[in-house]
Amino acid sequence: MVLHGSPVGLHRVLAPAGVLPQAAERLDTRADLWPDETRVRVQRLNLDAASFRQLEHDHDHDGDRIRAAVLDIVARRGKMQNPVTGSGGMLVGRVEAVGPQSPLGLRVGDRVATLVSLTLTPLVIEDGLARWDGRSEQVPTDGYAVLFGRSGAAVLPDDLPVALSLAVLDVCGAPALTARVVEQHGSAEGPVVAVVGGAGKSGSLSLAAAKVAGARRTIGVVPHQAEADLLAAAGVADAVVVADARDPVALCEAVATAGGPADVTVVCVDVPGCEGGAILATAGGGTVVFFSMATSFPAAALGAEGLAADVTMLVGNGFVPGHADLALGLLRGHPGVRWLIERRLGSAAPGAATMAP
Amino acid sequence: MVLHGSPVGLHRVLAPAGVLPQAAERLDTRADLWPDETRVRVQRLNLDAASFRQLEHDHDHDGDRIRAAVLDIVARRGKMQNPVTGSGGMLVGRVEAVGPQSPLGLRVGDRVATLVSLTLTPLVIEDGLARWDGRSEQVPTDGYAVLFGRSGAAVLPDDLPVALSLAVLDVCGAPALTARVVEQHGSAEGPVVAVVGGAGKSGSLSLAAAKVAGARRTIGVVPHQAEADLLAAAGVADAVVVADARDPVALCEAVATAGGPADVTVVCVDVPGCEGGAILATAGGGTVVFFSMATSFPAAALGAEGLAADVTMLVGNGFVPGHADLALGLLRGHPGVRWLIERRLGSAAPGAATMAP
Repeated sequence: MVLHGSPVGLHRVLAPAGVLPQAAERLDTRADLWPDETRVRVQRLNLDAASFRQLEHDHDHDGDRIRAAVLDIVARRGKMQNPVTGSGGMLVGRVEAVGPQSPLGLRVGDRVATLVSLTLTPLVIEDGLARWDGRSEQVPTDGYAVLFGRSGAAVLPDDLPVALSLAVLDVCGAPALTARVVEQHGSAEGPVVAVVGGAGKSGSLSLAAAKVAGARRTIGVVPHQAEADLLAAAGVADAVVVADARDPVALCEAVATAGGPADVTVVCVDVPGCEGGAILATAGGGTVVFFSMATSFPAAALGAEGLAADVTMLVGNGFVPGHADLALGLLRGHPGVRWLIERRLGSAAPGAATMAP
Repeated sequence: MVLHGSPVGLHRVLAPAGVLPQAAERLDTRADLWPDETRVRVQRLNLDAASFRQLEHDHDHDGDRIRAAVLDIVARRGKMQNPVTGSGGMLVGRVEAVGPQSPLGLRVGDRVATLVSLTLTPLVIEDGLARWDGRSEQVPTDGYAVLFGRSGAAVLPDDLPVALSLAVLDVCGAPALTARVVEQHGSAEGPVVAVVGGAGKSGSLSLAAAKVAGARRTIGVVPHQAEADLLAAAGVADAVVVADARDPVALCEAVATAGGPADVTVVCVDVPGCEGGAILATAGGGTVVFFSMATSFPAAALGAEGLAADVTMLVGNGFVPGHADLALGLLRGHPGVRWLIERRLGSAAPGAATMAP
């Protein structure tokens, strides 16, 4: 055994040589750990939605065939990475072994969710997926996975439903980076922060994070009145406005009427074409944080140049130290955020059309 | 006439209503100026390379047909924006009228190049392109163009050949943003800066800008030994290393052997797949600036998350106040940069295989 593993898992790459685990065709899944690794007894896989849809489509919604396909991928690649979509998902399990040099701070017995993708996580399934009918992204299983020195994992809290914690952990980079940008803004009275897609999971958490971090005013932008009513009822934003984020002039004007331009604009909606509006809604010297995977790099770069807009544009990085704890803390401290996210999970209390006081 | 124009030119959009000039089908090209506008007598258009290639291909390299196509586009749209590629280019001309409220600081008679794209610049061609044979991206012409309050234009310096100035102005956002990031780094001894594609136009300017802004050490990364020899001869970087930027491990190791990891990594090569390597080559807490239009937003975002890398990732904005003067000043002050760029223009002194002492 090589005594010094790579913190990003290069020592587990079997083929092709020299690539990162995410780009690898096949990973080494041996149960023995390198000194900085951690082994997790897997209880559930949460497949990425795009991956599961592709499997359903390819296998005519036949659960047995979908199950066989997932088993085949994991056996062949040593990780759950859909070869068509390239995506993976996350997992829930219990820590069963911790290498002596692991920097992750986990203890044997901790119940954890991974914060890095299944696409780079060595995985062995030991129960043939016998308890899964192949009809849902939620895959109960028994097996093990290996976390590298630089992998991320969060201990699941006891005081929150697992589904709620997972929903929050899935987007926890957004509020953390928003908080950092607001804290670094440097003005005494704090920045004006606009969050496009403010009623969603990452959006509502980012609004709450911005306020806690010192924003002078937070503006939630939503696409229609029904969402505006929800966001207003949740009490998460100082102001709520309706605008089509793909319409630059409309977005800019909506933010302006609510107290803009924004010093910080956070884009949390997964629709293409929001770059120009976000740039236009942001004051000179301000910052735009793009969290949407639908963001076009050239549209952002050329859009700012075409508007001669001196704005700093950040690629939303899903990893910020402490992001999981920050997001779970925001959920606990902001009943409005919890209410919005539980509604999306379909787990709001029956009849809870309006938020409880 | 509307007295209050929009600084980004919304008042010149004829169709469709409400979009930004870059997204418009047709612009208003009237010669009368709104108070914050500037009119330029156009002497030459520099068509975007991708646009010109498309026109050549579509019209069988027939100069007459290509000329007719450009005339048709400009007459129909009121701007030179290739409907297939979506791209434009830039122009050179002389200022002939300045609105009383123009913030651009230009004077009648100034010879200027536009720093915003032709895709958003109202343009009228008055000579039928009679002096252009349709066989080159360089289009001599006579006509006029309108700059908005927030358009960018640079006065062409008298002491430099026009082609050299244009080559530098084309990429002047990169050194300006690099300098800003280095200045903001905050460490007393200055950051280590790696520039991927260090021997190119934007790369060599960014290396020089980093050093002037206070970098402790600059590392130029190039794809093969011939470029390494050139960059070393130019004396623009403290260290020069060879690595394939698409190979994350190779890039990371090359930067490490040259004094890395980098606190700031600047990506200036227009090839896809450099995101992972740039992230891996950057120290925790550092910054990656992506200037390549081949950058994939999801690859950057998911790459950093997968590596649990706490790096700030910037979308390279082509507009930074003062960027044109900064880049031209770097060219004048760094003979090595000038030598590298002139080589690319094919205008280096005959026999200048090595740089003059």
